Amino acid sequence: MEILKAVYQLASDEADVRARAEALAVEQSVEMPASAIRSEFARRETLGRVGAIERVGERDFRVTLHLAAATTGHECGQLMNMLFGNCSIQEDVRLVDVELPDSLLEAFPGPRFGVGALRARLGVAARALTCTALKPQGLSPDELGALAGVFARAGIDVIKDDHGIADQRYSPFAARVRACQRALDAAMRETGRRVLYAPSLSGSPKALHEQVRIAADAGVEMLLATPMIMGLPTFHELVSESIRVPIMAHPAFSGALRIDPPLFYGKLFRLLGADAVVFPNYGGRFSYSRATCEALATTALGPLGAHAPAMPVPAGGMTVERVPELLAVYGRDVMLLIGGGLLSAGDALFERSRQFVDMVAAGAARAA
Amino acid sequence: MEILKAVYQLASDEADVRARAEALAVEQSVEMPASAIRSEFARRETLGRVGAIERVGERDFRVTLHLAAATTGHECGQLMNMLFGNCSIQEDVRLVDVELPDSLLEAFPGPRFGVGALRARLGVAARALTCTALKPQGLSPDELGALAGVFARAGIDVIKDDHGIADQRYSPFAARVRACQRALDAAMRETGRRVLYAPSLSGSPKALHEQVRIAADAGVEMLLATPMIMGLPTFHELVSESIRVPIMAHPAFSGALRIDPPLFYGKLFRLLGADAVVFPNYGGRFSYSRATCEALATTALGPLGAHAPAMPVPAGGMTVERVPELLAVYGRDVMLLIGGGLLSAGDALFERSRQFVDMVAAGAARAA
Repeated sequence: MEILKAVYQLASDEADVRARAEALAVEQSVEMPASAIRSEFARRETLGRVGAIERVGERDFRVTLHLAAATTGHECGQLMNMLFGNCSIQEDVRLVDVELPDSLLEAFPGPRFGVGALRARLGVAARALTCTALKPQGLSPDELGALAGVFARAGIDVIKDDHGIADQRYSPFAARVRACQRALDAAMRETGRRVLYAPSLSGSPKALHEQVRIAADAGVEMLLATPMIMGLPTFHELVSESIRVPIMAHPAFSGALRIDPPLFYGKLFRLLGADAVVFPNYGGRFSYSRATCEALATTALGPLGAHAPAMPVPAGGMTVERVPELLAVYGRDVMLLIGGGLLSAGDALFERSRQFVDMVAAGAARAA
Repeated sequence: MEILKAVYQLASDEADVRARAEALAVEQSVEMPASAIRSEFARRETLGRVGAIERVGERDFRVTLHLAAATTGHECGQLMNMLFGNCSIQEDVRLVDVELPDSLLEAFPGPRFGVGALRARLGVAARALTCTALKPQGLSPDELGALAGVFARAGIDVIKDDHGIADQRYSPFAARVRACQRALDAAMRETGRRVLYAPSLSGSPKALHEQVRIAADAGVEMLLATPMIMGLPTFHELVSESIRVPIMAHPAFSGALRIDPPLFYGKLFRLLGADAVVFPNYGGRFSYSRATCEALATTALGPLGAHAPAMPVPAGGMTVERVPELLAVYGRDVMLLIGGGLLSAGDALFERSRQFVDMVAAGAARAA
């Protein structure tokens, strides 16, 4: 039987941890007393088993379960169900790592573009990339377009919608996407420099497929999605079947999941096809530690079968002044996302944005 | 501006709570410094505002935000994004209640069947309902069908798939759904007593719509879905556009969300169309308190616009011996779900199942 390894951190006393791990293996597979299983096939081919148990803290253990890969049906939703379905409701359990067998790596081929093709599209071979966000909600399509034009002329590489910009009456998806892409096209003609617009997708599956079509018709070359809001299988279907451009994944609605961020954003979002993963940077409005952020970036870029790397996109409360520090931490394979930190410049928006671009370029020059 | 009220529990010192609440209002709406907003419309029509702040514990405050209903686009995913998108990543925040204005109650009409139509389908006017689960994973369609037949002959009202039974090679969706419904049809002809089979839906949106069709063709009269695995907008689309039978919602993959269970399962799942909501009962393998479970049931059944009530379905490690206690706690508007507690009877499965049915009937007789 082909094995999917799921690694959990379990809060338990040492005396109880073996029994607790066995109960978890049952919970995450057959979900009934193992002694009551009457089918030899089920017992042999679907019952989860406890692998290594390792103490990692006073009352914390790292427990590896061996789950049957066949129980996932090689489908995204059922994979998550096997990894963290019922045990998401058990407060002593945290999902910290996953090791995928070949059949699952094949079923989920990961980024179609990844870091390399994203760089190629932008014509930026080596330096860190720059990114900003169009906001606030409530701007009209023309106002968003005007804002996008300023950012583009300042030399930002990727301009994304704020993830709260959806399909609202005051700024319908089709109208704003066309306005923003038009503004970028005009800026590119002026500057001769490539810039990608990534509109935010939102809504039910049918609306999402329709938005992908509208964006493609408007010449849009990147997209933003929030996998946990649309649902992971919906995200995966959209990437596999509709989307023909790089996709950036946003972590909204997923922060409280008790799945380690490096695993969830760096490995699982990438597995499902994210070419770039936005995550809350340390030292901003969110509570991730620097170590978590570094591990996340390393995981997104590191080995995962033969999959392309995904670009780490730290964000959230970042400022232009922190660019040298962030480049020192993340190196060149990063896309720095500063939104409010640029917009707060008011009348000096263009200059602040240009400063951001220049500081990233200077960092690259220093590193060379 | 029409207001959506979102109520959070915030961990904060009293001196800081006002500023923290203001920051949360910004995070959950414009996501940029309010002072830097240059559009009068955006400031007036999309910026979140702080309502009541109430102390509920030493360092805990209940904070109500007034969000603009228009920012949700009256769409399920964006509604969740406004309520708990970015702040899901902030550990000091818990979403505890939501008060919906008329336009959102209209956009989400809730259960199409609810408690009343579910009772009518079963021909059970007043007593509590009984439910069990087909498991483990790994049984063949014929084995699952045989199991369903035993439960049906014993008089169980609703027989659902274990939520881990997906579309796996050893038991493909179409084959097992037909086998189980056939077994129930045969049992109904024998006993003259109605029983509903609720197969578990899983997969990407296209697979889900196809499974709904297959189930309808097989004569299936109820369905099971896991909204947080498929994605809430996908669940809502499925309910609104494809499903023509009562739907039961399962909490897998949603347990760690820091959204209060009565709100999430009792109000929001119901709002999106769940006719019955499965939740982990107190005193089993999960850690919900009895008070949480009672609040959840009360919320699912209580007032929500003009919406039909959703049937509470406590589950998880329950035993037949606890039936009198559970009936005393939940009353008659409940569907008791016992799975492993029946299956562990082994050769006495029919008798244990019949005992479950009889104890629920006896409880109804005592109450009458």
